[in-house]
Amino acid sequence: MTDSLNRVIHERARLGIMTKLMAEGESGFTALKKSLSLSDGNLNAHLKVLMKNEYILMRKEFVADKPRTTYRISEKGRLAFGEYIDSLEKFLKSVS
Amino acid sequence: MTDSLNRVIHERARLGIMTKLMAEGESGFTALKKSLSLSDGNLNAHLKVLMKNEYILMRKEFVADKPRTTYRISEKGRLAFGEYIDSLEKFLKSVS
Repeated sequence: MTDSLNRVIHERARLGIMTKLMAEGESGFTALKKSLSLSDGNLNAHLKVLMKNEYILMRKEFVADKPRTTYRISEKGRLAFGEYIDSLEKFLKSVS
Repeated sequence: MTDSLNRVIHERARLGIMTKLMAEGESGFTALKKSLSLSDGNLNAHLKVLMKNEYILMRKEFVADKPRTTYRISEKGRLAFGEYIDSLEKFLKSVS
């Protein structure tokens, strides 16, 4: 019934991260944090899960000697997100 | 973005429990366990969260001297489930 919902993406904070990155292409740590109202530790933990699953990619670069970290969806993440949305649509059809 | 998704119901196993109880009216522990492929401990923990939030009700009765426990959705749970489904539909519209 809900088995087909990818549990990595279904978790609410991670769904928020994936949705934001899908919409905006890429985002920095602070922007994600503000947008999702998460603590540093919480956001970090969810980003790690998404990176471990290769759904998002992290880039570190230096802008005027200051480090800047940005995150974006990988191709694998884009596919997984699409499949998750399909599963969610099927679930909604089944309950309505 | 995903803030409006009720976190008590959104969790995948609890969403499965709520959906099954919405569809079937009531269900016993073993039927829920089989249907959702959860361990006893895991199912118990999720049922407790749903009971604490007063989304489901537990009934214990004796059938031929054997205890039987059944669970069903409360009125509060029915309303919360409906709101959750509405939020999910809005979320899906926003990403598609």
